[in-house]
Amino acid sequence: MERRVAIFDSTLRDGSQGEGLSFSVDDKLRIVQLLDELGVAYIEAGNPASNVKDLSFFQRLGSLSLRTSQVVAFGSTRRAGISCDEDRNLQSLASCPVDVVAIFGKCWTFQVTDILRISLEENLELIRSSVAWLVGKGKRVFFDAEHFFDGWKEDRDYAMRCLEAAKEAGAEVLVLCETRGGRLPDEVEEAVRDVVATFPEDGIAIHAHNDSGCAVASSLAAVKAGASQVQGTLLGIGERCGNAALSTLIADLELKMGIRCISGRLEQLGGICKAVAALCNINIAPRSPYIGASAFAHKGGMHIDGVLKDPKSFEHVRPELVGSSRRLLMSEVAGRALLMRRIEAVMPGLGKDSEPVVALTELLKAKEAEGYQYEGAENSFDVLIYKELFHSEPFFTLIHYQTIGSLPYADPGSGASHTALVKASVRGESAIAAAEGRGPVNALDKALRGVLEQFYPSLRTVHLVDYKVRVLDGADATASRVRVLIDSSDGQDSWSTIGVSSDIIKASFLALSDSMEYKLFKDRNRRR
Amino acid sequence: MERRVAIFDSTLRDGSQGEGLSFSVDDKLRIVQLLDELGVAYIEAGNPASNVKDLSFFQRLGSLSLRTSQVVAFGSTRRAGISCDEDRNLQSLASCPVDVVAIFGKCWTFQVTDILRISLEENLELIRSSVAWLVGKGKRVFFDAEHFFDGWKEDRDYAMRCLEAAKEAGAEVLVLCETRGGRLPDEVEEAVRDVVATFPEDGIAIHAHNDSGCAVASSLAAVKAGASQVQGTLLGIGERCGNAALSTLIADLELKMGIRCISGRLEQLGGICKAVAALCNINIAPRSPYIGASAFAHKGGMHIDGVLKDPKSFEHVRPELVGSSRRLLMSEVAGRALLMRRIEAVMPGLGKDSEPVVALTELLKAKEAEGYQYEGAENSFDVLIYKELFHSEPFFTLIHYQTIGSLPYADPGSGASHTALVKASVRGESAIAAAEGRGPVNALDKALRGVLEQFYPSLRTVHLVDYKVRVLDGADATASRVRVLIDSSDGQDSWSTIGVSSDIIKASFLALSDSMEYKLFKDRNRRR
Repeated sequence: MERRVAIFDSTLRDGSQGEGLSFSVDDKLRIVQLLDELGVAYIEAGNPASNVKDLSFFQRLGSLSLRTSQVVAFGSTRRAGISCDEDRNLQSLASCPVDVVAIFGKCWTFQVTDILRISLEENLELIRSSVAWLVGKGKRVFFDAEHFFDGWKEDRDYAMRCLEAAKEAGAEVLVLCETRGGRLPDEVEEAVRDVVATFPEDGIAIHAHNDSGCAVASSLAAVKAGASQVQGTLLGIGERCGNAALSTLIADLELKMGIRCISGRLEQLGGICKAVAALCNINIAPRSPYIGASAFAHKGGMHIDGVLKDPKSFEHVRPELVGSSRRLLMSEVAGRALLMRRIEAVMPGLGKDSEPVVALTELLKAKEAEGYQYEGAENSFDVLIYKELFHSEPFFTLIHYQTIGSLPYADPGSGASHTALVKASVRGESAIAAAEGRGPVNALDKALRGVLEQFYPSLRTVHLVDYKVRVLDGADATASRVRVLIDSSDGQDSWSTIGVSSDIIKASFLALSDSMEYKLFKDRNRRR
Repeated sequence: MERRVAIFDSTLRDGSQGEGLSFSVDDKLRIVQLLDELGVAYIEAGNPASNVKDLSFFQRLGSLSLRTSQVVAFGSTRRAGISCDEDRNLQSLASCPVDVVAIFGKCWTFQVTDILRISLEENLELIRSSVAWLVGKGKRVFFDAEHFFDGWKEDRDYAMRCLEAAKEAGAEVLVLCETRGGRLPDEVEEAVRDVVATFPEDGIAIHAHNDSGCAVASSLAAVKAGASQVQGTLLGIGERCGNAALSTLIADLELKMGIRCISGRLEQLGGICKAVAALCNINIAPRSPYIGASAFAHKGGMHIDGVLKDPKSFEHVRPELVGSSRRLLMSEVAGRALLMRRIEAVMPGLGKDSEPVVALTELLKAKEAEGYQYEGAENSFDVLIYKELFHSEPFFTLIHYQTIGSLPYADPGSGASHTALVKASVRGESAIAAAEGRGPVNALDKALRGVLEQFYPSLRTVHLVDYKVRVLDGADATASRVRVLIDSSDGQDSWSTIGVSSDIIKASFLALSDSMEYKLFKDRNRRR
């Protein structure tokens, strides 16, 4: 029989303990839907007793109809000194509209005696009574054996007695938590083997953190040793160095170990990760295995040569399998391939030797020589394509702009440091607007909008989500050329544009105006 | 006997093949010095045949005196169809002023027949003759067995014959390259065991990539199987998903496996990584094990509570061991250490509790909260120290500046786009100067010099050698804070300064004026 492993995602619980992360109730509901679409078995979504937001989330959960995932509520074993009936945390879990609850308890003697400061026997009783009470309320209980591996290393018998207490009380899954994240894969494997031998017919889960850089490998080692459930967070977010990255683990399990672990299609992985990242308000690290922007990007000459002959020469899996795509960086060949792909999207059927394609090829070469690099800013290139293919009247033409920066600033209470004015002609009319901002680009952005929004109200929905500056040739110091990349969104789509100049203001203006033009082209195409 | 493993860093070679990375010759020389300070055994620094920049680097290498590291030049086995004497790449390696060279050759039959498109026998001959030729020129040769693991899996005997060819020809180290990065640690371990059994007395190195998220674990597995050298890049940069992160591996080897691998102090790891990141113009990912800003940051309530009772409750190692710090006590520890080191250099013998040290500690905390980060821009910090310790009259005080950018520009033939004026008071006199430039910062730089050089002619020797911009919090888009780093030189020394502001012009002005002040302090100290 094909071996299966269940995936348990904790983005909304352990992930939210990562630095800088915070989810609204709507974010949480949308992330649950995305994870369900990917087809993970369990989604740990928060602690109904810990805050109003999580409580409201669980109340609204019924409005979703999930295909494959079970939502899990998280909490702790009861507090010492009170009964389960008196424990507000356990009560919240009992009344939470989910079937599965996860509660954590201590399994490391040091944690019991020095942090909880209770007796070892009392801790066993906390575990036993809490699990039994929740089972009595009709819940399926996953027991999070916190610090299990450190506990097992220092006092194996006590750690095992904790698992036994949970098991006897009716826990369905024993979750072995590598809480501090410092153990190496061999130690994890050895301990999991021991647990699997002791509780042979039971569900054993691995929950690893990445503090020694081995969370993925330790999780794989645990699966090898017999674990039947893998916990982590889709993008690896979480306390300190984060949890095991499920995006990597899912692909490794499916493609490398031949273990089925999601019910959705693996080809959706890249797209779903991007959508979850947007809701987390984080960028996926470019070097992230399988899903990062650089994961299948080739730069070295020999590598590009090899990949063009046969992709398997420098790719361990086909990028399409995980919803990613190959990128060949900084080469004319890459440019041509990119070109045809983008043109096809706008106007299918144009041949390689057709006049507009030849003209665009020349334009691309000239732009690249100036320092433009459209990988990562493809929508600026789309603007060139639109202009070349449709020869339409421009949406607007700059007449001039001026930015004035001064220190001290004339109106220090405003928080601004710069003023800008922009004059442009739109449909035969000319218009002028001024604005102030926290830097020259911020002021210029506002002034440009001041002109354009009078004519194109849809631009009000456009906001800039990221702004990046790269100095291209540092050796000329402050006269160096700079490349400005801007990411924009209108709430539905997002797009990226670029500007290059030795003048950072002009480079920013070019990227800003491409962003506005792209939005206008996009809206016009939609109406067609 | 204590076991040792040698560390081989390829930041300047494989790392530079990562997306978006490019090093100036000065950057490369400074990174070599930092890695030498950390005490890695080998630093692979580039390919002298591939470009003018690498060639110039090797020519200037003699100016450094290294304590512990050997610099390694990289290239390939000879091309098919010509002799070693005719091969420009091998010639460059032979004439390169280093003792150790690394050359790569194919070890996977598919790569030989389908990518190189030569016979299997001819490939063996390429390896044998190239290694022998370089050994004949007096070089120590490391043989990079490219795609070794894929080759070993598909045709073990051929992969082994490749190693044997290199070995017989005199290669000192056989570098087993996990080029595609897709193998899991178990497979790596098994293959390394096989190689170690076949070549028992030889140096075996592991070179892993991170495409399945296991580069660190695979490298550790190879060490367990007997590898005596570990290759990677300090920060994990490199082609696609990057190389094995040495920052993680060094700490894991030293702290988890008890294997000595660097000759410097592990406590320097965090600081050196930050300085290398600044030269790479990248941010260290906050979740990076050991060295990331979040690596020892605690957020969950139970975690903070536990750490306050005993740090070991949620920390797998003490952060000080790797030059990091806990986030609650945060920059005070790191800051204090940095502070004392720099103060000692200016005025030895000041105690930790002396008034200026306490005042500087407070100032440092305030600056860090604003987004300043002095690692990689230490001379801006020196300017603060000078001002605090000597209470001297400032060299100059800005009265105001103004920059005006316009498009179109009034004098288009000038190549300029901006004008700037600076008014400052110097020794009780006020002076004003104006200039135009290719961007606002270039114009401002010239105008500031226009004022200052009248009073301080030595500033004429100062030129800016690099200018870097980093957007700190992209989510606010064009109103984000930016960090500007400027490298300056007067032909004798070079120094680095920093400015942070939401206004890029102001950030640049702060870094520029620190650069001028540093030069003036430096000259005054020399005269004392």
